[in-house]
Amino acid sequence: MKLFTSRRNFLSKSSTLLAAGVFLHPIELFSHAKKATFTVGEIMDAFIAQVPGAPFENTVDTLKTGSKTQVVTGIVTTMFATVSVIKKAIELNANFIIVHEPTFYNHLDETEWLENDPVYQFKQELLAKNGIAVWRNHDYVHRLEIDGVQAGVVQQLGWDDYYKQNAVLEIPTSTLEELISHIKAKLEVPAMRYVGDLSQPVSKVLLLPGAIGGRRQIEMAMQEKPDVIIVGESPEWETPEYVRNSNEMGINLSLIVIGHSASEEGGSEFMANWVKTEFPEIPTFHIPSGNSLNII
Amino acid sequence: MKLFTSRRNFLSKSSTLLAAGVFLHPIELFSHAKKATFTVGEIMDAFIAQVPGAPFENTVDTLKTGSKTQVVTGIVTTMFATVSVIKKAIELNANFIIVHEPTFYNHLDETEWLENDPVYQFKQELLAKNGIAVWRNHDYVHRLEIDGVQAGVVQQLGWDDYYKQNAVLEIPTSTLEELISHIKAKLEVPAMRYVGDLSQPVSKVLLLPGAIGGRRQIEMAMQEKPDVIIVGESPEWETPEYVRNSNEMGINLSLIVIGHSASEEGGSEFMANWVKTEFPEIPTFHIPSGNSLNII
Repeated sequence: MKLFTSRRNFLSKSSTLLAAGVFLHPIELFSHAKKATFTVGEIMDAFIAQVPGAPFENTVDTLKTGSKTQVVTGIVTTMFATVSVIKKAIELNANFIIVHEPTFYNHLDETEWLENDPVYQFKQELLAKNGIAVWRNHDYVHRLEIDGVQAGVVQQLGWDDYYKQNAVLEIPTSTLEELISHIKAKLEVPAMRYVGDLSQPVSKVLLLPGAIGGRRQIEMAMQEKPDVIIVGESPEWETPEYVRNSNEMGINLSLIVIGHSASEEGGSEFMANWVKTEFPEIPTFHIPSGNSLNII
Repeated sequence: MKLFTSRRNFLSKSSTLLAAGVFLHPIELFSHAKKATFTVGEIMDAFIAQVPGAPFENTVDTLKTGSKTQVVTGIVTTMFATVSVIKKAIELNANFIIVHEPTFYNHLDETEWLENDPVYQFKQELLAKNGIAVWRNHDYVHRLEIDGVQAGVVQQLGWDDYYKQNAVLEIPTSTLEELISHIKAKLEVPAMRYVGDLSQPVSKVLLLPGAIGGRRQIEMAMQEKPDVIIVGESPEWETPEYVRNSNEMGINLSLIVIGHSASEEGGSEFMANWVKTEFPEIPTFHIPSGNSLNII
């Protein structure tokens, strides 16, 4: 599966891609073909230009540190800008980190409440001292004509052949246990949470990486009637209880909770590939941040 | 530790209890000493009367099914009214279930969006057909002079000697791994999620059962500087990331995520004990609903 294309190769491939619905809007071609350097803002704008209906008025996809005008020396894509990821970016001389999730422990990255906190101060100073810009690309990447995170995760799971560019996939029938083993291996997650009967056959998958909210997860399950819902996370009083109740009344519905970071890491791989294709001059690295929570 | 007292024994024990801060307000004594039957509303009102500042205008602690006027045949206390718990209540001829968490998969127990859903319909009909009242006692039990859930969980964990009637406990020093083993054994949870170094010594515990929100968890950690935060659950982009960052910068702070249901089940045991003491005429049972999510 090709998730996106270079704007440079656009003319030769455009008919195929348009047929695939990847691009709906004309885009600027060859604009940076001979440029040697790019700013943070230019990269942000190039991505946002590919998103239908963008730019959005209300979005969490703001610059968390750094400036749009700074010249990019290298790019790291990841789910969370952990301290380890930031330090690796510094080693790699990459001064632009594109994250998918918050940097400061809340959805809006509000920081007033953290101002006197040593953890916040340490991270903020580490970023400032090394002149690192952090941009959250969450709403935009999800709102590409084909959700970039979903597509990236599908690729990571080896499910390209079953992907119809939405959240419902019919994969070859296996047991729930076999499916969990497959996901563990592909996403490198050693242990995983689930609701359901491990021997239940599963084929129809509702794939919802991240945390779209219990109500949306349940409403999609009500509509699609999958064998299994796969999520990043969900408040336990929402989807896990719904699936538990479904099981108790005899409905074959399972739930796999991958963990937030691992469930969407394919989206950061997607972002790295996008940058590498669009801006091959810029050294670009995908550094998985991995699940924060271990299991014992 | 005595978590509450019978109103019948109040006069003989009142000075000790008042010293312990258990009761701040005068309560009605002997009111039902000779009554044989009680309604759902009478039991609710008796509990609410013990809560400082109650009744609350805004609360999720409403009757989810049944009626305040129905005569109680028996009481089951639990975290979640799962289908299994409801069926056990029916077997036990208990027509009143006191839960701590939502019955219909969202905090406010809104049900319009579920009206055509077979899982909701099944559960609703099971409750209606068997005339079972479900009352959520969440805000009230947490707002007793001593938080009933916290006190119940402390008792379950065998930490009465270290309890100062708030969320901070100094327990004998162990490693994080030993502490996790202790919690697993006491709360009967086979596997558990955590952030931190398993060999880290831990003594100062911030015990926050349930899901009080990442920001509140973090703010309390900022204030109390514990060795370990113990929670029921937290969105992964909130407390788990904060603790991961703390570790990365060398702060000895760990996080244990028990799972929501198991983390507060001690509160349902507390509720059962309260009913047994206050209304000994009523057959009362604590049925743990257990964590919805298994780990493999």
